[in-house]
Amino acid sequence: MAKPRLGEFERIARFFAPLAGKGALGLKDDAALIDGPSGTHYVLTTDTIVENVHFRADDPPGRIAQKLLRVNLSDLAAKGAVPAGYLLNTALPKSRGEAWLEKFAAGLAADQKEFGIALLGGDSVATAGPVTLTVTAIGTVPKGKALLRNGARAGDSVYVSGTLGDAALGLKALRGELMRLSAKYRRDLIDRYRLPEPRMELGRRLIGIASAAMDISDGLAADLAHLCDASGVGAIVEAGTLPLSPAVRAALKSDPSLLASVLGGGDDYEILFTASPGAARKLPRLPVTEIGRIEAGRGVTVRGRDGQALKLTKLGYAHF
Amino acid sequence: MAKPRLGEFERIARFFAPLAGKGALGLKDDAALIDGPSGTHYVLTTDTIVENVHFRADDPPGRIAQKLLRVNLSDLAAKGAVPAGYLLNTALPKSRGEAWLEKFAAGLAADQKEFGIALLGGDSVATAGPVTLTVTAIGTVPKGKALLRNGARAGDSVYVSGTLGDAALGLKALRGELMRLSAKYRRDLIDRYRLPEPRMELGRRLIGIASAAMDISDGLAADLAHLCDASGVGAIVEAGTLPLSPAVRAALKSDPSLLASVLGGGDDYEILFTASPGAARKLPRLPVTEIGRIEAGRGVTVRGRDGQALKLTKLGYAHF
Repeated sequence: MAKPRLGEFERIARFFAPLAGKGALGLKDDAALIDGPSGTHYVLTTDTIVENVHFRADDPPGRIAQKLLRVNLSDLAAKGAVPAGYLLNTALPKSRGEAWLEKFAAGLAADQKEFGIALLGGDSVATAGPVTLTVTAIGTVPKGKALLRNGARAGDSVYVSGTLGDAALGLKALRGELMRLSAKYRRDLIDRYRLPEPRMELGRRLIGIASAAMDISDGLAADLAHLCDASGVGAIVEAGTLPLSPAVRAALKSDPSLLASVLGGGDDYEILFTASPGAARKLPRLPVTEIGRIEAGRGVTVRGRDGQALKLTKLGYAHF
Repeated sequence: MAKPRLGEFERIARFFAPLAGKGALGLKDDAALIDGPSGTHYVLTTDTIVENVHFRADDPPGRIAQKLLRVNLSDLAAKGAVPAGYLLNTALPKSRGEAWLEKFAAGLAADQKEFGIALLGGDSVATAGPVTLTVTAIGTVPKGKALLRNGARAGDSVYVSGTLGDAALGLKALRGELMRLSAKYRRDLIDRYRLPEPRMELGRRLIGIASAAMDISDGLAADLAHLCDASGVGAIVEAGTLPLSPAVRAALKSDPSLLASVLGGGDDYEILFTASPGAARKLPRLPVTEIGRIEAGRGVTVRGRDGQALKLTKLGYAHF
């Protein structure tokens, strides 16, 4: 019998973690830290996106560029870092000519302005396969202050920024599902799938407040489980407190089973963090919602409005 | 009529150079500089390699890993930098399972030890296309001392490290050409194609000696042209002085037209640098050969043993 294939996390743990050096944070934090100029650390983070895996071939090139940058900026935000620069690697098939590149570069230009970041270097190669894009982003934090995943402690509250599930339902809408939703709601969801909103200001403000933080890219349930594993704790989430957009509320109303996508769908790019109860009061005017608490033990339980634990059929989105 | 497609350098100049920030060196140096801890700069460089473009599908996975690391280390060497760490992005098709990954990781482990560098982070994604691998390497140089491409001046001598053309002829040997060479020579050439030898010690020693430097990845003629363009000068190379391995000498003896591959083939990963005449004396025991000189004007001329300029049919290897 063939051995079962390892998932992404097992592969990293088995093959790459033994190669990790100082500053790599055990390859568990989606970022590395190296000494910066006086009193600072550089945060390094990198993400690769592949056509038909992480974006659709017919997504607008400018939006693909922005999503590529923003998934990396979201990792910087979750560390509390201020963006400094980025490197860009493009592997493009012949079908992507100058017209495509021009729109792609315009998307980068718009977001460079929006987020105060500039291109530092990169590489451009040809491929016979799908468009494959890598950004490595660099940010700065006060030395020793980067937000990590391993600091959550029993008694902390669990918080998320913004709203959850929009991107996962946006992907469904792009695939022609959710046709009972209004056209405006479908468009709102699709926009959120295509264009995440990295929480740069919130991330910086969380330094000194959050005990642990990460961005949500694989879905709330899976990513909270990662944070809990790194911290050696468990968590309870109250489903009734999850922050939901009007479009997601409408979708859940017509099909309550979509809650699995809200909890388990990817691409939210919101910040998940833990802090002492009441910490939200220290963050006025920032979109932060308390959704649960950290407990001793292990594992993540999501409780429905009736107080019963929900059985999740899909704990998150796995790339393998 | 369809417009002709832009080459890699034109694409970078048109679409990406306008996005470049401080430290990007105008995207012309295959590296960026950012402030490091007291008295240092970090050098950042990144390369993507794609199956069937930059390596062969049947190359040993450990050798692919080493080549990936080494092409980046070679860029650090050419800047005079000491390696510090690297990020790794893998996009792998399902056909590359754990057995492949294990050998790939073993190659990384061997070279981490060899070159004193450790893994800092990365990303692992799935692809339906060819294996696509990116390394972003980080090194340190004394602040303001990084070797750049733009410092060559008329009267400087032109030098290269090691020998030229081995990798280009190694690729031919892998393709079943050069069958008149001995099996040992063919193996030597193939080894050089699969496993470049980044010139880390030479790079560091060139600080304070070289007026300009870069590594040779696209072939001597093309890369010297890049260095000359960046410096606003021209160069004359004496073909009779090119450093050649016994295997390349034997190949040229049986087919003199292979000189075009020696001058224009890629993958040498030797250091090309300019310095005052006689600078090689300051580098005892290092494999350095003077091959020509920098002149006022523009362009690169290669002169044969008869003193006549050679017409090169292929000035280098273009990825587009």
